[in-house]
Formats: sequence, structure tokens, C-alpha cells
Amino acid sequence: MLDIAIIGAGPAGLSAAITGVIRNKKVKVFGNPPSTSYIYKAERVDNYIGMLGVSGKEMMETFTSHAKDLGVEIENKKVIEIFQMGNYYTLNVENEFIEAKTVILANGLTKTAVLEGENEFLGRGVSYCATCDGPLYRGKAVVVIGDSIHAEEDANYLAEVCEQVYYIPLYKEISHLDGRIEVLKARPKRIFGEQVVKGLDLAEGSLDVSGVFIIKDNIPTTKLLSGLELDNKSIRVNRMMETNLPGVYAAGDCTGKPFQVAKAVGEGSTAVLQAVSYLNTLAKA
Amino acid sequence: MLDIAIIGAGPAGLSAAITGVIRNKKVKVFGNPPSTSYIYKAERVDNYIGMLGVSGKEMMETFTSHAKDLGVEIENKKVIEIFQMGNYYTLNVENEFIEAKTVILANGLTKTAVLEGENEFLGRGVSYCATCDGPLYRGKAVVVIGDSIHAEEDANYLAEVCEQVYYIPLYKEISHLDGRIEVLKARPKRIFGEQVVKGLDLAEGSLDVSGVFIIKDNIPTTKLLSGLELDNKSIRVNRMMETNLPGVYAAGDCTGKPFQVAKAVGEGSTAVLQAVSYLNTLAKA
Repeated sequence: MLDIAIIGAGPAGLSAAITGVIRNKKVKVFGNPPSTSYIYKAERVDNYIGMLGVSGKEMMETFTSHAKDLGVEIENKKVIEIFQMGNYYTLNVENEFIEAKTVILANGLTKTAVLEGENEFLGRGVSYCATCDGPLYRGKAVVVIGDSIHAEEDANYLAEVCEQVYYIPLYKEISHLDGRIEVLKARPKRIFGEQVVKGLDLAEGSLDVSGVFIIKDNIPTTKLLSGLELDNKSIRVNRMMETNLPGVYAAGDCTGKPFQVAKAVGEGSTAVLQAVSYLNTLAKA
Repeated sequence: MLDIAIIGAGPAGLSAAITGVIRNKKVKVFGNPPSTSYIYKAERVDNYIGMLGVSGKEMMETFTSHAKDLGVEIENKKVIEIFQMGNYYTLNVENEFIEAKTVILANGLTKTAVLEGENEFLGRGVSYCATCDGPLYRGKAVVVIGDSIHAEEDANYLAEVCEQVYYIPLYKEISHLDGRIEVLKARPKRIFGEQVVKGLDLAEGSLDVSGVFIIKDNIPTTKLLSGLELDNKSIRVNRMMETNLPGVYAAGDCTGKPFQVAKAVGEGSTAVLQAVSYLNTLAKA
């Protein structure tokens, strides 16, 4: 069992991870590659003290190699859901189940827009994870709504098992999509069905599909961990970065403004030290 | 008038300063030289992400030159007291009076131990600032209680104006003390007097002096700015680093645990952005 599972490999998550490792805890970071961090696209960052005039790319690469040099393990997999199991947590990491005594949420800004029918049919035709749920749609027609280039891998996997895969990109340039996939320039409007999904209404018409895969870089926090209290759209934390759930901390953009690398790094550090002190009380109990 | 006066030139103060300057505000940092920061003495720091395996000295020098490269002005003078003046603040900077619309307290950990009689005789023989009050003791006998090597300059100045200067170092090695000063290896016990100071009781005897100069690297926060609310010994702040006083923010070790560079840097960034947004509302009013 992990001591500390960190969700997110941006500045907050990596900052938490290095102190966790230095404090001899069993730590693992789950997150998208550095290139998906908002800061990665910044041409020049001047206001993280100690690193003057670096690009966002250089910054994220330096952060990542700093963490790796200290022995931090980073897994480029998506955490789909976290379950509270008494005094520990179980993470669904693309259908691999991993246990952790504490969790640090550092999953950045999550887009909260929800499609009509998305909540209603979640688990009954709506999925956030191709690896997890793809096999259920063998021989069927599905549509993938891709939030970023990273959704293409999910679609490519589905092309191997499904009869028909439609792909609706919510971004500009398609990168490496399987030739069997039909790309639609369309605006999704509503998921419809009865007990299960029957199709997707578009601004431009309608698709008959059994599965709607909504693939975002980040799972919306409320879906990630049920029972977590929010403040507006941010995770509610106190000054020690504690959430309302025992052993769960949050750091970085997911806790709200200001959206700054320095703030994220600082909160990551505070969160992990609080987790370490919680682990120490568990050990004594 | 300054937009933002920052008290303290450690990680929190410098982090605040760089973002303040980038946001085009008139900023000035008042603080001790980098070598007085706690972190300066650290042999190796690994847990500020982006700077792996640096010494505390290297870190503080990098931080300081980052700030200076962006045009941050750092004045190595001590802020003795801050007065609230309606909607701005006046700082007593070693008897030079400087006005600022907002104040960020980033003055680190202050030693709160108070000598018997210190509060009672403050301003009536007890002083925290040789430059400010030295001239009042021309031709008289005074004692300087020096918290660190930096107190020696205060003592040397007093040696020029006073009849007799005793010096009680609370640290090990005397560095550059004027030959006219009498060094006492003694433990101060109690300041005594009637209307004004008459002397200082030591564990080893007693001194007849008119002035007791208590020279610390940091002025205790409660004496620095009256009306400021504390939480235990730390400055009370909310998640936006606001104190109970309008336009006054705090960041870094002075706001409490964890005492980490990352936390200080993050809080400095949050504090200054909050100050910037407050300045913008002032400008609109």
C-alpha cells in the first residue's frame, strides 16, 4: 500500500512528491505527461523565484527531472475514481486498483462543463476511460468526445475493439488518429437513451451509438472522489491543505486562485507535510 | 508613496517583490542581508522544486539576484514600527519615514522572549534601534543586548555618541566591535528604573545605565504593527494571506508552520497578488 498517492504531475504534485520522498514515505504520482500542464505552454515565466526567464517547458522539465532524480515514481496513467475504504483509499488507475493511506489531489483546473445526459447515463453508456470500459463495447458503435490530443490514444484503442468509432475533437489539430475512425466536426448537445445510452444529439444531427466516451485530461473533481466538499468550483481546504475527508489533501490550481506556480509549489509542500504528520499518527494508533 | 512595502528579504518577501514589480507596482523591500535568513545556513536544500542540491547560501543568492535583475529595490534597513494612517501606512525605517499603500509582512520568525521590564520601559530607556534613539543618550552609559553579529554596528555607532557602551552578545563570536566597547559575558535578567531606566540586572550582578538597546534581527511582530491579530505566535491570515488590517498581508514563516521555502515563496506570491487587487480597488474608489 502506498503511503501517499498524488494525483497530478504538475508543479503542486511534484513539489509534494519530492518532500514525501525525502521524508521516506512510499509515494507515487499519477498524472499526465508534463506537456499537458498549463504552464508548459508559457513562453516565459519570471515570477517563480530562483528560475528567471525560463520557458514553461523548461520549467516543467526541470521540475520533472528534479523529482525523478530524487526517486519519485511518476506513472502517466489516469486516475478514474477514488474510493474511501475506511481509513485508506483505493484508486482506480485505468482499471488497475491501487491502495493508498493518504491522497493528495493536485489535478489542476478541471473543466466542469457537463453534457446533458452525462451524469444520468454515467456507467450506463457514458464512460471517462476507454481502457476501463472499452471491452464492454466490443462490436458496437461508440463516439469519443476528445478534450485534447491525449484522447486520441483512447480512440485508437476503441477502434481495435468496436465496430464503429466516431471522434469529435474539441481542439484544433488531429495528431495520430487510427484510419478506421470517423472524425466529425460537430458540437455535442445531449446524450439520450432509456435504461442505457442510445445515441448522441449533435448541433448538426444525431448519432446512434451505445457508448459515449468523454475523454478529458482531468476527471472533474466531484466525479473523482465522492463526498469531497467544494468552495465554488475549487476544492475546499484549510491553511494546512486539509480537505473535509481524513487523509485527503489538495494543492495547486484545484484549490482555487491565484493560479500561480509558486502558490502550487508551496501548497504541495504544505499538503505533503500534513500527510506525513497524519501518517505518523496512523502509525502510532 | 510606495504601492507595496515588503518587510523582509527572505524567500517570502522576495517572491512577493518579483510579482509586484512584474505587475508594475512601486515596490520596496526592507530587510536584513540574505545571510541572516535561516535558510542561508542550510548545507543542502533538496525540496524546493527546480533547484536540486543547492546550499542555502546559493539559494538565497539566486533569489536575491533574481529579484534585483527584475528591478526590485532592496534596502538593508530595519523597519522599527509601522503606523496605520487611515488608508495607508507609515513605516519608521531607522527614523526615516516612508509611506506605503499596502504592507506585506514577511519578517520570518521573530524571537518573542521579552525581558522583565522591556515592555514597561519601552520608549523610556528601552530601545530597539540605535540609529533612531542613540542621540538621546549622548554622554550617557548604555548597554546593548545583541542578538546576532548585526547588532555590532548599532553598538559601534553608540560608542561614538555615548560615554560608556556595554555589549552583551547573545551569540558566540564577536566580529568587528569598536575598541571602546566593554563586552560582558553575562545573562540579562531584568531592566529596572522608576520613570525611566536606571539599570540592568544580570545573573552576574548589575549595570547602571540610562539606556538598554535590545537589537534583534527582527522586531517582534506585535511591536512592529499594533492591532495586528495573532494566532498563537503567528500572524493570523486567511487563504488569501490577508491579515485583520486592510491592505496588510503576511507571508512565510511569520504566518506559521510549515517552515519551508516552498510555502514561503507560494505565500509571498499569493499575498502580493492580493495586494495588487486591493490597490486596483483603491484606484477605482
